[in-house]
Amino acid sequence: MSTTDPLNIAAKIQPLDRQMIALARDRQRQLTKPTGSLGRLEEIAIQMAGITRNVQPVIKRKAVIVMVADHGVTVEGVSAYPAEVTPQMVLNFLRGGAAINVLARQAHAEVVVVDIGVAAELSHPQVLARKVAYGTANMLHGPAMTRQQTLQALEVGIAVCESLLVQGIDLIATGEMGIGNTTAASAVVSCLAGVPVRLVTGRGTGINDMQLAHKIDIIERAIMQNHPDTSDPLDVLATVGGLEIAGLVGVMLAATARRVPVVIDGFISGAAALVAFRMNPLMRDYCFAGHVSVERGHQIILQQMKLLPLLDLQLRLGEGTGAVLALHIIESALRTHSEMATFAEAGVTDREEA
Amino acid sequence: MSTTDPLNIAAKIQPLDRQMIALARDRQRQLTKPTGSLGRLEEIAIQMAGITRNVQPVIKRKAVIVMVADHGVTVEGVSAYPAEVTPQMVLNFLRGGAAINVLARQAHAEVVVVDIGVAAELSHPQVLARKVAYGTANMLHGPAMTRQQTLQALEVGIAVCESLLVQGIDLIATGEMGIGNTTAASAVVSCLAGVPVRLVTGRGTGINDMQLAHKIDIIERAIMQNHPDTSDPLDVLATVGGLEIAGLVGVMLAATARRVPVVIDGFISGAAALVAFRMNPLMRDYCFAGHVSVERGHQIILQQMKLLPLLDLQLRLGEGTGAVLALHIIESALRTHSEMATFAEAGVTDREEA
Repeated sequence: MSTTDPLNIAAKIQPLDRQMIALARDRQRQLTKPTGSLGRLEEIAIQMAGITRNVQPVIKRKAVIVMVADHGVTVEGVSAYPAEVTPQMVLNFLRGGAAINVLARQAHAEVVVVDIGVAAELSHPQVLARKVAYGTANMLHGPAMTRQQTLQALEVGIAVCESLLVQGIDLIATGEMGIGNTTAASAVVSCLAGVPVRLVTGRGTGINDMQLAHKIDIIERAIMQNHPDTSDPLDVLATVGGLEIAGLVGVMLAATARRVPVVIDGFISGAAALVAFRMNPLMRDYCFAGHVSVERGHQIILQQMKLLPLLDLQLRLGEGTGAVLALHIIESALRTHSEMATFAEAGVTDREEA
Repeated sequence: MSTTDPLNIAAKIQPLDRQMIALARDRQRQLTKPTGSLGRLEEIAIQMAGITRNVQPVIKRKAVIVMVADHGVTVEGVSAYPAEVTPQMVLNFLRGGAAINVLARQAHAEVVVVDIGVAAELSHPQVLARKVAYGTANMLHGPAMTRQQTLQALEVGIAVCESLLVQGIDLIATGEMGIGNTTAASAVVSCLAGVPVRLVTGRGTGINDMQLAHKIDIIERAIMQNHPDTSDPLDVLATVGGLEIAGLVGVMLAATARRVPVVIDGFISGAAALVAFRMNPLMRDYCFAGHVSVERGHQIILQQMKLLPLLDLQLRLGEGTGAVLALHIIESALRTHSEMATFAEAGVTDREEA
């Protein structure tokens, strides 16, 4: 995997194409509507022109990459569900019965399920078997991952993403599943954003007040145990992160380095985005925040990255559901941008002033 | 049109079906996700069950009704565009070049364009010719419409909507176009919500600060001139409203009386919704607010009706664009509700506690 060195890929991310942005903005001014009246749809179309270097961008094939892994810290009782649910949900994904499957069918997006670290044997022709480990170690007693495992998980994400881009996928949505992963994401975001654990820790799949206090305590102790170097996003990722989070970092770096837009889901995907953003802030301009999650730490991530979410539907499921839901908005933006008549074409009187 | 008496239709609106709501909520609890984790999608599906009396509701055919009319008050210089744009945009709708056409194609919704009061001759096989008048009178000098015209416009809306329902349309989105209609809508909302004109008046298609001050002045003077009876929504509608607003009131009453869901667009459609809501508050439970508009008075309408918008994309175009964009969210809600596997079907372990 020497061609997929994460630091090398991160360094390749380029700024958006300013000329295409200007051309797309000019086209928006000619469409039969008051300029600005389509609000964020106009901004999305213009940004997509800058991403794709095409003044009238088109999305042909979309995929949501669902990275799945387990977390050693679940033995501390941080989740409302047992860890056995992780492999069970993988089978549900493969049979098409999960929320992400339904929403991806609606959005005509492909679902790519990656076992990057499930703590059980999984053999199914439709799952990408890329297991780096049988779950992370319990971060309460030491690093969740070694540096080597972390880099390997990043490389898995890069390789999976690049193989999809080669097949013609031109938009990537991020998703994940892993019992315990809001615990890891909270730890990562607390360290990278410099925000107290209690302000970035939520109820995950639905724990009560006492369990939430316990979860916060576990995360605080894990951070104290590992004392990650908060100036090094990969050290934070390794010590208190997770395999699926690392895999998504790789996905985001690979896509944005190739000028492919990334639609980020909620809190876990957002934690991965924050890691990638710290590796190279230019990646942000290729990203769309699909939604803002109920999980409280997600707001912090969006503020840190200066991303405005496309949707606010009080979701807290993960799997990529909020990202895939938002694909419709991005496609609406591109279709109005390309298909609407101009004032000249329609014979409609434009306003006199500029 | 004696069978379409608006007051009679309004009185027919019934509460939602509580039993279906309970059954749909029970189904949500069995789906393979933490209960509540799909947030508003869950609420939408449950509400739709109560609306349609079907525990797994399905939408088969959607239409957006675009009511178009002119406003006598435009001679006072309240809009950034001249009134001639109204008939020009109707032709743009019919040729498929407007934003609403693009978004309706994407949503697989039919676009029904109704000339309920354009101040020009329009003859085109695809426009529904239901002209009540050649635009309203200038409300600065007297009522915009007579009581008779108002009732006639309501009846047009009722008849258009009912003919669509008979054809199998099972979801209605509302849209409109008419240069000057944010002026009328602001007047209506100010009167019905009891809020000062300046707090419900925005920039419409894009006027500057001086023009906005003038617009507010014109609206305040029109209200003083007509002194509408604010306890009578039809008097407010007649004196300071508009033909397309009245038509949409009729559409909303007819749909909700027949238990058909209505997706409301932005400020103008919202003003119509507020009139219908004052005629019978039960209609609200059949409605979805597609989005929240930039036009400031829209927030007031949503607060008055206690509706939470599905989208916030900084739109201010009208035409039904925000309503049609939101259809995707409603369909996502219904598809996850119906297509997701249950814990039992998928063999996934549910959490132990309730």
